[in-house]
Amino acid sequence: MGEIGTKLGLDELAGGAAAISKALLAEFIGNLLLNFFGCGSCVNVGAAVGGIITIAMAFGLAVYAAVSVIGHISGGHINPAVTIGLLSVGRVKPIRAVLYIIAQCAGAAAGSGILKALTPEKVAGPLGATSLGNEVTQLQGFGIEFFLGFVLVFVVCGVCDPNKPDSKATAPLAIGLTVTMGHLCAVDYTGSSMNPARSFGSALVINTWADHWVYWAGPIAGGIVGALLYVHGFSASVPDTPT
Amino acid sequence: MGEIGTKLGLDELAGGAAAISKALLAEFIGNLLLNFFGCGSCVNVGAAVGGIITIAMAFGLAVYAAVSVIGHISGGHINPAVTIGLLSVGRVKPIRAVLYIIAQCAGAAAGSGILKALTPEKVAGPLGATSLGNEVTQLQGFGIEFFLGFVLVFVVCGVCDPNKPDSKATAPLAIGLTVTMGHLCAVDYTGSSMNPARSFGSALVINTWADHWVYWAGPIAGGIVGALLYVHGFSASVPDTPT
Amino acid sequence: MGEIGTKLGLDELAGGAAAISKALLAEFIGNLLLNFFGCGSCVNVGAAVGGIITIAMAFGLAVYAAVSVIGHISGGHINPAVTIGLLSVGRVKPIRAVLYIIAQCAGAAAGSGILKALTPEKVAGPLGATSLGNEVTQLQGFGIEFFLGFVLVFVVCGVCDPNKPDSKATAPLAIGLTVTMGHLCAVDYTGSSMNPARSFGSALVINTWADHWVYWAGPIAGGIVGALLYVHGFSASVPDTPT
Amino acid sequence: MGEIGTKLGLDELAGGAAAISKALLAEFIGNLLLNFFGCGSCVNVGAAVGGIITIAMAFGLAVYAAVSVIGHISGGHINPAVTIGLLSVGRVKPIRAVLYIIAQCAGAAAGSGILKALTPEKVAGPLGATSLGNEVTQLQGFGIEFFLGFVLVFVVCGVCDPNKPDSKATAPLAIGLTVTMGHLCAVDYTGSSMNPARSFGSALVINTWADHWVYWAGPIAGGIVGALLYVHGFSASVPDTPT
Ligand SMILES: [Ca+2]
Ligand SMILES: [Ca+2]
Ligand SMILES: [Ca+2]
Ligand SMILES: [Ca+2]
Repeated sequence: MGEIGTKLGLDELAGGAAAISKALLAEFIGNLLLNFFGCGSCVNVGAAVGGIITIAMAFGLAVYAAVSVIGHISGGHINPAVTIGLLSVGRVKPIRAVLYIIAQCAGAAAGSGILKALTPEKVAGPLGATSLGNEVTQLQGFGIEFFLGFVLVFVVCGVCDPNKPDSKATAPLAIGLTVTMGHLCAVDYTGSSMNPARSFGSALVINTWADHWVYWAGPIAGGIVGALLYVHGFSASVPDTPT
Repeated sequence: MGEIGTKLGLDELAGGAAAISKALLAEFIGNLLLNFFGCGSCVNVGAAVGGIITIAMAFGLAVYAAVSVIGHISGGHINPAVTIGLLSVGRVKPIRAVLYIIAQCAGAAAGSGILKALTPEKVAGPLGATSLGNEVTQLQGFGIEFFLGFVLVFVVCGVCDPNKPDSKATAPLAIGLTVTMGHLCAVDYTGSSMNPARSFGSALVINTWADHWVYWAGPIAGGIVGALLYVHGFSASVPDTPT
Repeated sequence: MGEIGTKLGLDELAGGAAAISKALLAEFIGNLLLNFFGCGSCVNVGAAVGGIITIAMAFGLAVYAAVSVIGHISGGHINPAVTIGLLSVGRVKPIRAVLYIIAQCAGAAAGSGILKALTPEKVAGPLGATSLGNEVTQLQGFGIEFFLGFVLVFVVCGVCDPNKPDSKATAPLAIGLTVTMGHLCAVDYTGSSMNPARSFGSALVINTWADHWVYWAGPIAGGIVGALLYVHGFSASVPDTPT
Repeated sequence: MGEIGTKLGLDELAGGAAAISKALLAEFIGNLLLNFFGCGSCVNVGAAVGGIITIAMAFGLAVYAAVSVIGHISGGHINPAVTIGLLSVGRVKPIRAVLYIIAQCAGAAAGSGILKALTPEKVAGPLGATSLGNEVTQLQGFGIEFFLGFVLVFVVCGVCDPNKPDSKATAPLAIGLTVTMGHLCAVDYTGSSMNPARSFGSALVINTWADHWVYWAGPIAGGIVGALLYVHGFSASVPDTPT
């Protein structure tokens, strides 16, 4: 295998087909759960209407649950913006990144598809698809999604910093509650995607693609900046005394 | 004692009557608290109406409290779907599983019964009993409850994995907040049982059994799949360095 | 000092006047914060009306904050039901218990008094005082408060069990969120006191004492049962291997 | 460098320009995120109106996220009341404190400015600026903000006490949820600033300065009292056995 192959991550495929398959399955399941439960919380089946807090908690706690369970298998990205952010700082290799993103989108589509099948047609509505709020321009939507991707990947890098072992036990909670925080602010701006796969899965099952580029470009651009800023600006130094 | 007796778990009874009695009492108390406080949050005593988030937080935090206190005694299942899920992967023996489920159902019935006695008849309503939402079919209800049981047992297996010691301190919180997450999505689909004992206790005190099979079949089927997927797909390997 | 003196805890006073003064100040501050912020969340200053979830989170997070800060000084009871529960299992001595309860009530009165001074008279209303809900009888109120005191002290004993070191880091959170859980269920039954000092402080500043005995008898009786059940039924055994 | 220079913290500048620049950038980013996401949650873009709980969770979880990521770089103050509180007990030197406060205010202004640019003018409203509620006097507002600053810095000192290592892993969560708690009580009293920089940033972008002194004097006075009380009254003693 040549140098380029190693750089792209071909060695990961050759050496560990079982490991990478397991990681792809983990990402698939993670995104399935996120779209099923998160988007499910957006549906109003009956009179008991939820609100921003309901949706924000559902998405955040779904991420908390998924990352808690599969973090040790795949890293628990369940989000192309996280995967590309980590790619930009060399923490993930290109081939793995491409495969992750495919698995994430497939999982999100499966989650939204199952949700559609389990929801009475009369109340399904847009099934939690993300769309720009009242008078929000595409550029504004891009900006909001940029900051959502930024804060998410900035937090992921910060709480998973190998030189901050105190953060490890609560990392999945911090990541999940950052997703909640983003939704509390941005549900009525852009639907608060933070995650291209999540928007892709929702868009696919209702076949509506208005402003869809916003949900890829925004979180990914923000995620890259968040990863670069943390890794080059704020990485913890190796602790000198064991705690 | 023969080989079959060991397989069924007869040895656990013979060798540790005190230990198993204590575990059954723990499960009884856990389910009592869950039905008392969870279903209590569904009752509207006066003008201060709660909503999905109130109910979702009450059930999730009741699970968090109960698992925090009794986890070391019985494992803190307080849910037949968890018990049968763990049975399916050999983590619980059959006789213990049957006794646990009886204790869980008795505890849930006690919790709902006490709640009924302490609630003014005029405002009691269905006392938090689970029922299918507007236009939700039995099959859809089964599917929703399947995924609720799946995610719960998947998380239980993930955060209690003995080779992931970092998860231990926050395991009860992760389990409780997964219950909250499920409710945020599914309260208006099926009442979000996730737990056959919880539905049984509620149904018993108001003596209403419509669609009751959904609340047993769904979470248990999902719990078995969740346990099998985690244990055979995602179990952590033994860590090589102590943390 | 005779045997009876030791039993009552006279030695704690003689040997450590500074230590016990500090503990009493800690309890005073803890209850002041609880009544100030908790009851403050019940006031509707303007149009932005909160609800059960707002009140439940405020009381629970106030307990989380207070216990996090003063737990190492006084044990962080900030509640006569906790103090008497722990007294009933020999974890607190009688004289200390009496002094704690006085400090707790004084702190709660101070918190509610300051809140009154800082709230426009027009919108003050009952300033968060606890009262029985619509059609709730005194006996029902007693029962509800019994279970609120029970679950709180049961959780306190469980997460502070010295043989469960894994619970230590998250103990204040578990205790605080149990207070939130109780409120989610019981705000509209009894105001969800869980805590005689909290009800005393509120009652004092608006000088309204209807059904006041319920808020002493209920949580204290429940707290005693919760402590006895945990300590005699569920205490963890000494761990044989260090984790 | 003379004795006075050391006291003021000139040595920190001379010896570690890179370290202090990094810390100032960290504080800048922290306050940017707080004002962007916190104030963003106050805007009603469309029909899906949030409420006190939405705002309270957004500010608290933004603090949780920021402190989790940058705590090891700058201490994670992101609040002049915290910085001045720690200055009053000698934990921060004067020159560093001044620079932090400038960075915090600049970050908050940037966060609110970006939010303004990304919010449709029609729905922007006061963009989350803090103001006194209905009939709340300046003195009452000062008192409320005093207690908000007090509880925040009291908790910061308590959970970051170097002799309470058990608090370390959950310290950012405890600090963030204390911010949530303060908001649950005080949003309708004063907007629940707790943080002069946050109010400054909001006031600047809408150029409205009514009662602005309240948001500096209140939290700072409370923060100083909170720090003094904890450090001189409740500091943990050095643990004798390693845990
Ligand atoms: Ca819904
Ligand atoms: Ca209710
Ligand atoms: Ca209020
Ligand atoms: Ca909004």
